[in-house]
Amino acid sequence: MITVAVDAGGADLGPQEVAAGATQAASQGIGVLLFGPASEIESVGPGVEVVDAPVSIAKAPDPAFAARTTPEASIVQAAKSVADGRAQALVSGGSTGSALAAALFNLKRDRGIYRPALALPIPLPAAQPVLLLDVGANVTCRPEHMIQFAHMGSAFAHAVIGIEDPRVALLSNGEEPAKGTPDLVAVHEQLAGPAGSGLNFIGNIEGTHLTERAADVVVMDGFVGNITLKLVEGVSSSTLRAIREAAMSSWRSRLGGLLLAPSVRRLRAEIDPEDQGGAYMLGLRQLGVVAHGRFSRRGFARAIEVAARGVEADVISRTRSALERAGALRPPRSPSEPAATVSRG
Amino acid sequence: MITVAVDAGGADLGPQEVAAGATQAASQGIGVLLFGPASEIESVGPGVEVVDAPVSIAKAPDPAFAARTTPEASIVQAAKSVADGRAQALVSGGSTGSALAAALFNLKRDRGIYRPALALPIPLPAAQPVLLLDVGANVTCRPEHMIQFAHMGSAFAHAVIGIEDPRVALLSNGEEPAKGTPDLVAVHEQLAGPAGSGLNFIGNIEGTHLTERAADVVVMDGFVGNITLKLVEGVSSSTLRAIREAAMSSWRSRLGGLLLAPSVRRLRAEIDPEDQGGAYMLGLRQLGVVAHGRFSRRGFARAIEVAARGVEADVISRTRSALERAGALRPPRSPSEPAATVSRG
Repeated sequence: MITVAVDAGGADLGPQEVAAGATQAASQGIGVLLFGPASEIESVGPGVEVVDAPVSIAKAPDPAFAARTTPEASIVQAAKSVADGRAQALVSGGSTGSALAAALFNLKRDRGIYRPALALPIPLPAAQPVLLLDVGANVTCRPEHMIQFAHMGSAFAHAVIGIEDPRVALLSNGEEPAKGTPDLVAVHEQLAGPAGSGLNFIGNIEGTHLTERAADVVVMDGFVGNITLKLVEGVSSSTLRAIREAAMSSWRSRLGGLLLAPSVRRLRAEIDPEDQGGAYMLGLRQLGVVAHGRFSRRGFARAIEVAARGVEADVISRTRSALERAGALRPPRSPSEPAATVSRG
Repeated sequence: MITVAVDAGGADLGPQEVAAGATQAASQGIGVLLFGPASEIESVGPGVEVVDAPVSIAKAPDPAFAARTTPEASIVQAAKSVADGRAQALVSGGSTGSALAAALFNLKRDRGIYRPALALPIPLPAAQPVLLLDVGANVTCRPEHMIQFAHMGSAFAHAVIGIEDPRVALLSNGEEPAKGTPDLVAVHEQLAGPAGSGLNFIGNIEGTHLTERAADVVVMDGFVGNITLKLVEGVSSSTLRAIREAAMSSWRSRLGGLLLAPSVRRLRAEIDPEDQGGAYMLGLRQLGVVAHGRFSRRGFARAIEVAARGVEADVISRTRSALERAGALRPPRSPSEPAATVSRG
């Protein structure tokens, strides 16, 4: 049986909501190790084991420091349980920063990976989500990092989301291969060559096409990724708000809004981010899923299910093989050559 | 009287639509020199002088090359008329690329400016627009470029849009001063010091807040700017499309959509990009406005009015003084020291 380690700290609705999600996932046959304050967890169903971990660093001002210096924190304990094999994947119930830091220090990068990335599925109406990465794990990225992101995202989209031969694109300021920053142009050139072998690389897409299913996996550096995901969130919610306000501006439009409400609710259900379970930490020795702090039990259950599906589909070794086939793994350092001198000799 | 040079080539609705907009603007007392195919311009009102320029490079595959090698092109002739003083500002009726290139080669950068920038006003419901720059004139930018963009945007927002003491922000992946790429962190540090004097610099804003009036002027490099403006366009139109589709899904919601329609039309009118006249080319010796190719006569009239207002408000020298006061002008090169050796000695 697959066991998923879950951090119940940091959820807006409290640890019991995460416990309820864990119970739901466990009813699908997934084992859950639930790390959180036992005193605040009223009940769990069969298959969920509560490990008392009352300290949460989800709101710590410096998550990286907190993750290193707070071994008793629920997210650190959860990450450690995956590192030592008690569980096979990690789910965090709240803060991305502390989850990433705890995962990096305890789960560590997978062999041959330069940098782990955070991948976010953007839900679209009546379609599979578009997977964006990196959305914030690395503010600055070198070309070899983004080449790995392309393979990491593609392997995940195929193995876990179930997209056949995912179309991988780079987010740029134009579709032509020469468009973009010098680093992005280099990534394009390499992905169009041997480094893209095994990949359905379709080139650059522009911001206008991001939400139009022009690609299944869209690669960018973590700075652009953070801005992208926050713009998508901000612009879609401000557009919806403006329409809601327009619908309150007269009796006629209020009535119109009421009549429209069920269809808009259906649309909202189709693009509910809880369905995707959150963001995915890729490039670690095991899979991590960061559920959004405001999720309900349904979102946490989905996060645990996605994590378990990743284990089942063996997304980690699939990613490794894809990188290996494309010659995109980080070259191992020979013990006689310390890292600092490799580039000089 | 202020005279604006207008390129009538490149508009989707044809040169006569631009001529109609020019006629409208001329009725406000603005002189217009209209460069375009005289055979396709049926009529113009008083105050509009047509200069026959049948060659358009608006759709040229390499606009920069076309602008350099096609002196007879309508946009090149229009830019030249501003350079030699026959007109005081430039309006282009179509392609941003050829307008930027023609302006750069003919109008030239203003004294002390490193790089011209393209500024785009994002229209918001019931409020002044938010001005983003650079949205694509420069793919890569150094900190000193972005510092100038902050002053250029602020001077324009104040003098032309009429925003009192505009709040200037940097688009970043977090509000803390240390967030962002190393270049952005350097810009933040300098704008918080003497280089920001005279500026209402409010620090970083995130993508989520861009459309929430968190700032009046938002500075970014041209790569991020291009992605930002296309995401804003793409996400808002795909959100509206999804709602429109939801409103077609049943008889009940169709009726709701019909009742809502007038309020949504009012909302659309409030955020009509034609109201802003297009994007603004800042940092040149004279002001340039790039109307969108799909604009109607109303948008072209507005573009000409904005250009004239910029001349009237003397936005170019206001920008220069602001940069001078902040010590942010590019240092002049002494004739004895060629550029290449300044940094070494």
